[in-house]
Amino acid sequence: MLTVNAYAAVSATAPLVPTTIQRRDLGPHDVLIEVKYAGICHSDIHHVRSEWGEVPYPLVPGHEIAGIVTEIGPAVTRHAVGDRVGVGCMVGSCGECTSCLKGEEQYCLRGNILTYGSVDRDGTITQGGYSTHVVVTEDFVVKIPQTLGLDEAAPLLCAGITTYSPLRHWGAGPGRKVAVVGLGGLGHMAVKLAHAMGAEVTVLSQSLKKIDDGLRLGADAYHATSDPDTFEKLAGTFDLIVNTVSAPLDVSAYLSLLAIDGTMVNVGAPAEPLSVNAFSLILGRRSYAGSAIGGIRETQEMLDFCGEHGLGAEIEVIPASKINDAYERVLASDVRYRFVIDTATLA
Amino acid sequence: MLTVNAYAAVSATAPLVPTTIQRRDLGPHDVLIEVKYAGICHSDIHHVRSEWGEVPYPLVPGHEIAGIVTEIGPAVTRHAVGDRVGVGCMVGSCGECTSCLKGEEQYCLRGNILTYGSVDRDGTITQGGYSTHVVVTEDFVVKIPQTLGLDEAAPLLCAGITTYSPLRHWGAGPGRKVAVVGLGGLGHMAVKLAHAMGAEVTVLSQSLKKIDDGLRLGADAYHATSDPDTFEKLAGTFDLIVNTVSAPLDVSAYLSLLAIDGTMVNVGAPAEPLSVNAFSLILGRRSYAGSAIGGIRETQEMLDFCGEHGLGAEIEVIPASKINDAYERVLASDVRYRFVIDTATLA
Repeated sequence: MLTVNAYAAVSATAPLVPTTIQRRDLGPHDVLIEVKYAGICHSDIHHVRSEWGEVPYPLVPGHEIAGIVTEIGPAVTRHAVGDRVGVGCMVGSCGECTSCLKGEEQYCLRGNILTYGSVDRDGTITQGGYSTHVVVTEDFVVKIPQTLGLDEAAPLLCAGITTYSPLRHWGAGPGRKVAVVGLGGLGHMAVKLAHAMGAEVTVLSQSLKKIDDGLRLGADAYHATSDPDTFEKLAGTFDLIVNTVSAPLDVSAYLSLLAIDGTMVNVGAPAEPLSVNAFSLILGRRSYAGSAIGGIRETQEMLDFCGEHGLGAEIEVIPASKINDAYERVLASDVRYRFVIDTATLA
Repeated sequence: MLTVNAYAAVSATAPLVPTTIQRRDLGPHDVLIEVKYAGICHSDIHHVRSEWGEVPYPLVPGHEIAGIVTEIGPAVTRHAVGDRVGVGCMVGSCGECTSCLKGEEQYCLRGNILTYGSVDRDGTITQGGYSTHVVVTEDFVVKIPQTLGLDEAAPLLCAGITTYSPLRHWGAGPGRKVAVVGLGGLGHMAVKLAHAMGAEVTVLSQSLKKIDDGLRLGADAYHATSDPDTFEKLAGTFDLIVNTVSAPLDVSAYLSLLAIDGTMVNVGAPAEPLSVNAFSLILGRRSYAGSAIGGIRETQEMLDFCGEHGLGAEIEVIPASKINDAYERVLASDVRYRFVIDTATLA
């Protein structure tokens, strides 16, 4: 067992605190990773505050992990010591169901093992990336291309794949009009990715505050949703709308922006149910869909795509001591566009 | 102008009454059809009662029309006197938008002309099939196969195409598990069609009252949705759910019955907004969609398919004098499975 430094939530209401946790001895297929950077995802906040259901405490969050392999188990073939690697939202799945066999471990029918707060194979609770080291089975470790910094790569492991997967699944590309709702951690990656895929990209944001960023990141157009004209002007426009906002919004209004056969896909997940008018689906054969992260194979594909196109996340690197401040700033949408913890500061 | 007998609604609250209406002189591309049978669709009731928005009175409903061509305009090439033909929900569209050019006139971007209650090209209000004759431009008239009776064919023009189109669009066929919610006018056709397409068909109905019918019509299984066990037993089962119920239901519960990548498609349209839990979409990349009737080309394809497989609607033929009674029975779900008016009784 390896004792490592970490930052943990000890209750739903207290600030995160420095602590130490145990990492298991390497099994034959395990990889020990020295975590260099860990992104702060909005869902970390939901989780540690038990807003998406009760979680076990103490809990170390973090599922946007970038680091270096420092040791491998005797049967490991996919990774070597010194490799630049990443770990995302999952560290295990059954490997046998139809979803796993298709490489879509995110939809494992028996339930996958999340990077933190899940019951692991050995019965312990998984602990995430706000720590100096993590032990993960090799199949859930992906390679980070040399062209990307580990800091800017970390958020790709959740914000990147969560937007890449639906963009690919619903065919974002040349000749397709894609709207991205919300320009935050997920949204800014959705803009970069959809633009790199060749789609015509529009940002739909509450205000025009971040318009310069949006256009710089690759958007062809940028509209404020607080302006009712936006919904009139853009009615029937988009083939795909990727909604990254996890606050409830007027779904039917956004559905009216879809072209015939268009799809709006939620990657953000409000806890409250949303209200949908069936007519807005029927009159245009529109779909309202959801998508969760992506499979491991697709995560590697996404990283390779980002490496090729030079698409890192836009980040603000912080020391561990600023984690609690960063949470408040995430909730206030005061980050452009992802906080990344420098785990050297956990030492 | 031709004066013809009809049954009309004169207000949102009064019973329908016998009346006469005018049919226009034949234009070059017009077809005069002697209506033999007209189906009673649940949406007729919504329309004549102004429940889906104000309609103009007097209004003759009816968009499930089967009859015989008795006269054609000089430029008509698609139909001949004596042809057995049908008319559905539309009698015109722009013909030029991307939807029309794809043969999907139901999604005409400029708005199609509905069979009744729409403003026609000449500025008059269209009047539907509860009448002895109708004049329709040839492109919106389809042929009824010889193997189908005109009475059992009439409901195919709405109930048939409305279920055929989404079944085809979302790939119902061998190896696919399809659930049909509600065994009424639309539902019973959905079961027949999905079964004939080779899908494994399950009926989800409030009770087991109609189970014998359901199995006879082609269902492989039949479950009561009033039994909470149904939702537990069938979780994650279906590739496609066709929801024919226009009353509001617990969408998220039905979404939980979808397999990964499954779609639930509403063809029934509750006026009230529905509540959807985004998690039920995200955890399984599920879609909630809508579909409206089908295009004219697809309507012909559906009729040919029904002709080939001997799929008429299950009907109860009534005289015009029973229309108001039939409306009450439709609202009480007391019909197996479609009322069809014998228009000879309008004389």
